[in-house]
Amino acid sequence: MIPLLYEEIVTRALREDLGRGGDRTSDATIPAGTLAEGVVVAREPGVIAGLDVALATFLRLDPHLQVTPHATDGEVVEGDRILAHLAGDARALLAAERTALNFLGHLSGIATTTRLVVDAIEGSGAKVVCTRKTTPGLRSLEKYAVRMGGGANHRSGLDDGILIKDNHRRIAGGVEPAVRGARALAGHMIRIELEVDTLDELEKGLEMGVDAFLLDNMSPEELREAVRRTAGRAVLEASGGITPETAPEIAATGVDLLSMGWLTHSAPSLDVALDLNPGGHSTSLKGS
Amino acid sequence: MIPLLYEEIVTRALREDLGRGGDRTSDATIPAGTLAEGVVVAREPGVIAGLDVALATFLRLDPHLQVTPHATDGEVVEGDRILAHLAGDARALLAAERTALNFLGHLSGIATTTRLVVDAIEGSGAKVVCTRKTTPGLRSLEKYAVRMGGGANHRSGLDDGILIKDNHRRIAGGVEPAVRGARALAGHMIRIELEVDTLDELEKGLEMGVDAFLLDNMSPEELREAVRRTAGRAVLEASGGITPETAPEIAATGVDLLSMGWLTHSAPSLDVALDLNPGGHSTSLKGS
Amino acid sequence: MIPLLYEEIVTRALREDLGRGGDRTSDATIPAGTLAEGVVVAREPGVIAGLDVALATFLRLDPHLQVTPHATDGEVVEGDRILAHLAGDARALLAAERTALNFLGHLSGIATTTRLVVDAIEGSGAKVVCTRKTTPGLRSLEKYAVRMGGGANHRSGLDDGILIKDNHRRIAGGVEPAVRGARALAGHMIRIELEVDTLDELEKGLEMGVDAFLLDNMSPEELREAVRRTAGRAVLEASGGITPETAPEIAATGVDLLSMGWLTHSAPSLDVALDLNPGGHSTSLKGS
Amino acid sequence: MIPLLYEEIVTRALREDLGRGGDRTSDATIPAGTLAEGVVVAREPGVIAGLDVALATFLRLDPHLQVTPHATDGEVVEGDRILAHLAGDARALLAAERTALNFLGHLSGIATTTRLVVDAIEGSGAKVVCTRKTTPGLRSLEKYAVRMGGGANHRSGLDDGILIKDNHRRIAGGVEPAVRGARALAGHMIRIELEVDTLDELEKGLEMGVDAFLLDNMSPEELREAVRRTAGRAVLEASGGITPETAPEIAATGVDLLSMGWLTHSAPSLDVALDLNPGGHSTSLKGS
Amino acid sequence: MIPLLYEEIVTRALREDLGRGGDRTSDATIPAGTLAEGVVVAREPGVIAGLDVALATFLRLDPHLQVTPHATDGEVVEGDRILAHLAGDARALLAAERTALNFLGHLSGIATTTRLVVDAIEGSGAKVVCTRKTTPGLRSLEKYAVRMGGGANHRSGLDDGILIKDNHRRIAGGVEPAVRGARALAGHMIRIELEVDTLDELEKGLEMGVDAFLLDNMSPEELREAVRRTAGRAVLEASGGITPETAPEIAATGVDLLSMGWLTHSAPSLDVALDLNPGGHSTSLKGS
Amino acid sequence: MIPLLYEEIVTRALREDLGRGGDRTSDATIPAGTLAEGVVVAREPGVIAGLDVALATFLRLDPHLQVTPHATDGEVVEGDRILAHLAGDARALLAAERTALNFLGHLSGIATTTRLVVDAIEGSGAKVVCTRKTTPGLRSLEKYAVRMGGGANHRSGLDDGILIKDNHRRIAGGVEPAVRGARALAGHMIRIELEVDTLDELEKGLEMGVDAFLLDNMSPEELREAVRRTAGRAVLEASGGITPETAPEIAATGVDLLSMGWLTHSAPSLDVALDLNPGGHSTSLKGS
Repeated sequence: MIPLLYEEIVTRALREDLGRGGDRTSDATIPAGTLAEGVVVAREPGVIAGLDVALATFLRLDPHLQVTPHATDGEVVEGDRILAHLAGDARALLAAERTALNFLGHLSGIATTTRLVVDAIEGSGAKVVCTRKTTPGLRSLEKYAVRMGGGANHRSGLDDGILIKDNHRRIAGGVEPAVRGARALAGHMIRIELEVDTLDELEKGLEMGVDAFLLDNMSPEELREAVRRTAGRAVLEASGGITPETAPEIAATGVDLLSMGWLTHSAPSLDVALDLNPGGHSTSLKGS
Repeated sequence: MIPLLYEEIVTRALREDLGRGGDRTSDATIPAGTLAEGVVVAREPGVIAGLDVALATFLRLDPHLQVTPHATDGEVVEGDRILAHLAGDARALLAAERTALNFLGHLSGIATTTRLVVDAIEGSGAKVVCTRKTTPGLRSLEKYAVRMGGGANHRSGLDDGILIKDNHRRIAGGVEPAVRGARALAGHMIRIELEVDTLDELEKGLEMGVDAFLLDNMSPEELREAVRRTAGRAVLEASGGITPETAPEIAATGVDLLSMGWLTHSAPSLDVALDLNPGGHSTSLKGS
Repeated sequence: MIPLLYEEIVTRALREDLGRGGDRTSDATIPAGTLAEGVVVAREPGVIAGLDVALATFLRLDPHLQVTPHATDGEVVEGDRILAHLAGDARALLAAERTALNFLGHLSGIATTTRLVVDAIEGSGAKVVCTRKTTPGLRSLEKYAVRMGGGANHRSGLDDGILIKDNHRRIAGGVEPAVRGARALAGHMIRIELEVDTLDELEKGLEMGVDAFLLDNMSPEELREAVRRTAGRAVLEASGGITPETAPEIAATGVDLLSMGWLTHSAPSLDVALDLNPGGHSTSLKGS
Repeated sequence: MIPLLYEEIVTRALREDLGRGGDRTSDATIPAGTLAEGVVVAREPGVIAGLDVALATFLRLDPHLQVTPHATDGEVVEGDRILAHLAGDARALLAAERTALNFLGHLSGIATTTRLVVDAIEGSGAKVVCTRKTTPGLRSLEKYAVRMGGGANHRSGLDDGILIKDNHRRIAGGVEPAVRGARALAGHMIRIELEVDTLDELEKGLEMGVDAFLLDNMSPEELREAVRRTAGRAVLEASGGITPETAPEIAATGVDLLSMGWLTHSAPSLDVALDLNPGGHSTSLKGS
Repeated sequence: MIPLLYEEIVTRALREDLGRGGDRTSDATIPAGTLAEGVVVAREPGVIAGLDVALATFLRLDPHLQVTPHATDGEVVEGDRILAHLAGDARALLAAERTALNFLGHLSGIATTTRLVVDAIEGSGAKVVCTRKTTPGLRSLEKYAVRMGGGANHRSGLDDGILIKDNHRRIAGGVEPAVRGARALAGHMIRIELEVDTLDELEKGLEMGVDAFLLDNMSPEELREAVRRTAGRAVLEASGGITPETAPEIAATGVDLLSMGWLTHSAPSLDVALDLNPGGHSTSLKGS
Repeated sequence: MIPLLYEEIVTRALREDLGRGGDRTSDATIPAGTLAEGVVVAREPGVIAGLDVALATFLRLDPHLQVTPHATDGEVVEGDRILAHLAGDARALLAAERTALNFLGHLSGIATTTRLVVDAIEGSGAKVVCTRKTTPGLRSLEKYAVRMGGGANHRSGLDDGILIKDNHRRIAGGVEPAVRGARALAGHMIRIELEVDTLDELEKGLEMGVDAFLLDNMSPEELREAVRRTAGRAVLEASGGITPETAPEIAATGVDLLSMGWLTHSAPSLDVALDLNPGGHSTSLKGS
């Protein structure tokens, strides 16, 4: 990911933690100029995402820190795995620690959760996609984490795709006026997707040449029937209450996409930590 | 919460979703000037937090929207509960919808999770506190959500408290130099807390007059012994792998605080939605 | 256009003109509290775009100004046409004047230029589209102005479409690997467009199922042949040195789109002005 | 130009193009780590301005790019002239390309247009100056481009000069109160200029000791008479509808300055391009 | 002063005081919704500057506060003078109090100090001017405060005037090349000032037509001689170690300007306070 | 101090001085590429603070400047002491000069003033502390300067401590409800301080277990009595009109802290300067 896309977020996050007074604990307990060395470690198995961001966080605080990655984003790691070695000014390492780990834990949590579902439906031909239900301020990073977990991205936002949902349909006065309006305005680079609750609505949309359908809360039987009727004429996306447990059955219906908001809004953080030592070398964990 | 503390976050979140082109779907499917009306609904039981922020999100997009809250932050609600009525320009309501709900779902998820633990240890006299393991950019809001769930806040950041952790101790060369340094620099408004792994370290800290102790990953027996030895001379905070299941046993040891990072970094989002209708009135759900 | 999308640009532009000291001329020559009244006028015929932005500029400086639009964006106007009446604090009107007019003249210039080409190819079935060759900082507004002139928008930026250009092809090692890579990464909401210089490349792209083609600097004969071979299987966009004079011949070849960078990077400004009077009414021009 | 004056504009422009998702085309078609090499080329003759800004744009995206200028701002170049060599990460070069070229083309267009008029009036002793009719957000850069084209700058904004225009005069109640007010407030570092429509107004201004006059839309005869009457007591600036064709006749009247808004608001962009190759060397064009 | 010029400074200052957690004292001690009423008071005599800014600070925190000014910027007040009445939400009043008073005290301190010198040299015909030795971030406000104290402003910054100082002269290789360069580049709206240490340098500058001179650290005798030799051909500015005590003697030499850096960098703050009461009316002080 | 905490302030301050046009005097008088060399000098004795910030200011303008500090923040220096050597591009040195010196003079002024009081009460055991009466936008830097002068810091802002002042007490309805509220909300890391005007109020606060007291405008006798009654149970802070002259007597009463707003809001700037030479070496002053 291009650093320009996240460097402002990193700076803001560091400022949020440093406040007005900086790291008082380190300033008070550790003499200026003290050196330290250590490792960023994944304490549990998972998929890494945000290691670049985490290391950029350390460097943003102090560009003289030595930072050596021992994993790459997207990599599946076991527990107690060293992800990076760090060395340099002890106060800088400590001041950046929590912010860097917050990025790494949050994004790796999303990647790990995504990978769980991706693995669960492997071989089905369906893809796992995320939604716009992301944490405010972190959309680009979270969508990146989904990709690192093997998922694909839906729209980045309101302006790079047209997705006609129930609220639009109700206010527009039905599927037909809504799709007609979308056709007229959508440029030649953007596809149109329509949320449908019934197979009748799907048929109507197919007749109007809609490119993709969001099949909301349909049963596996309905989904299978939707796949049959569509016959490859459009992309089909199943959505609504899909879990790692139900995903295989849904993927087996033949739909193209399974979209899940909780990949980004409810994935638990991955447990990552920074272990520092004064001048010695970091304890020997499983190397990369 | 003072709007000044979150208004920039709201603006940034709206811009993140609107991108360069705005809400293309609504622009394409709904004529300019169309009015709509509807309700923000909690689809599952929980504790509300961020309703003010969510409503401010709608108003930030269009100050002419009518916005009527039917719940207050901190309120425990059942499922299918109307949280607010909204009315006004349909495009504006739709363009702000996802961003507003992302705030509300995320913060209510934290409040709900916090309340779960708070209720689990009710009567013990111990408090539930959060940590600095927050989502980058949202610390103030997430700490507010913890308070709305009945929890208390630890430090806001690195500068409003002194917490000597293992990394500090190791690099400073032990508990003594670290605490001495902290004593010298801490102003008269800030307390000093020390992370300890053993009861010996606790004893040493008590001798040095440390104000509070973070008891990391101690067993209930150790915690009870720590409480006994401390005898009210310092605040005791239990930390490390506490879950709603284990919380009661830990709270029963007599410690003052139970701190849990997952309140803020891993709480699942609460399911909230916006149901809109063109000119009619919103469907009748359980009112406030 | 949602004000949130341009309000920061307006604020920055006002600050750019006011500098550190504000409007010294008005401060020096006009007593505080003096009222004035006047009209924003188009001094030459054209298509209006940015009137909302211009009026928002006045209101940003002083929310108490009275601002009444007499035209709408997208409207074709003759010369000496009143676009808006303004009244209120004279110093505020004068301080915002130049910035507001700079927006209005620039955007109306783009709309007017676009309309010229759109009218020139009327009836051909082809659309006029703009490119990413926009003025730094003003892309959203300039793309909006193109729409107001009857044109359509291509990508908003690098992230909402895939357009494989010559540089990509050369570095990727040819059309095939480039298109294969694009297919793999493009989500289901985004189409893929390929720049081709020859009909052979077009054929290869069609075989690979590319959605759209940028036909760069092809002669009308080549374009016609491209249309014939494509036979509706993909969108065809002609590009390169198209002028209002050559546009009709190119549109007549049957291509779907004519794209022109100069709509946004070289359109001359429309001549607009603000005429103010102290307490009297604005001079009588052609009303709306 | 000091980079601090434009670096924020460059960053904002890059973000505008990269959006939330970055350069999807390059990410999809070119493997990470691929190197490329190439040249920035002027495809038509003109005066270069903004080369530093363009190269800073590439370096802002990736500080490891190798960037070698082969021209300097203010230089007159022929067509197909190499302006710079670039080498480094292919994705970075491609992601920055359009934004960098947009700066270079826009600013060189202004410099080229300015030079056209400057050359047209060479030998007359008059100077070409720009106005505040600039593109919102780009004033400093555009005024710099005018200087690179051989022109001079008028005020940078409302606060670094006093220019009493018709609107001021009308609202202030005439030339006398306006000039008196200006005299009282203008510090000792700033001159006062007065817009006049008639020779009578000029005379009155001269009596009051005005430093400079904006002679609006006067005929060459009137201008000559104004020069005669002024007799060197003040700076005279001709303004209003001056074109490269009419400029020589106006310059010949003896006025000191010719000011033209279209230098900045309507100058067509200069055609510049980036030609990249995977590992080979850039095609041999006319070197510097 | 146009609010746009200071509103960002006000917002930043409020955020600086509120930090991440807001006003904990008021949140803890005063129930939400409590109303209060009170007065902003000058506790000592002085000249008011920044009252608008201070009141805007309260309104920025809470636009529903009632704010009634009882003095105007530039007004000379005695001690214990009510400057404004405030009423509304008690927490909002308390949260904004310190920031608002910091602006008011700082700017009134500058105005008061300026007025002291202005009064000391009344009748001499000389003006008091400030310098660029201002507090970082507050230049526009501080220069405004100087004007409110009866002083005049020198340059706003490096770009709205040319002042050739000793460092320039030494590096440029003397007065002559420096002045020649300045003449060539200065536009027609900006004057040129030269710092001189000796009367010989003054003579040389006068010969070259320099508009103004900064006479650095000259004795009253030298200043008188400088005035005599200049004979009205240029503006003369005395500078260096001028105090309210020495100002009259220096002003009596006939120089046009006395410039003093300490007006802005060392003026003591004026003592201002906010007295609040719960529901009663504010204590009766001297009204406006 | 971590550069991240002040770099934005430095950038803003440079932009404030450079405006839109940059350093016109240097651009006009000194050829591009000219080198210069020189020294930052303290012209009077004092305590240095902000040297890092000042040097960062030069480097922010031009990272290629050579910058060598010859003093450290907190150091007591005599007059005419060289604080740093600078070398590099002459224009860059001149463009950054004033902004860098404004930081250095302002912060050193605060450190010098603080040291004056700290020295005056040496041996008393009391500490000198600052308040929130700081210059808007510079709080962190000013509090740092106080520390460099040997003082200690009170709260950084409204959110990192609880200080119940008169206004709170009056609106809360007395000491008791205010302290009770504070107890309930204050986390375990923050102390509670209460402003008291009488010894009775002190007694009541002591009974309620308040951690610290602000003794406002008490006479030395009252302060002594307060110390006697408190008997070490709380921190005592004397405040109100303390001067370097009265400080020793107040410190001798046995209070723990003397707080003074004028350390930050009224300290006169320290006289610092930059002496540059074209290629030669800087004049020989007292080295470090």
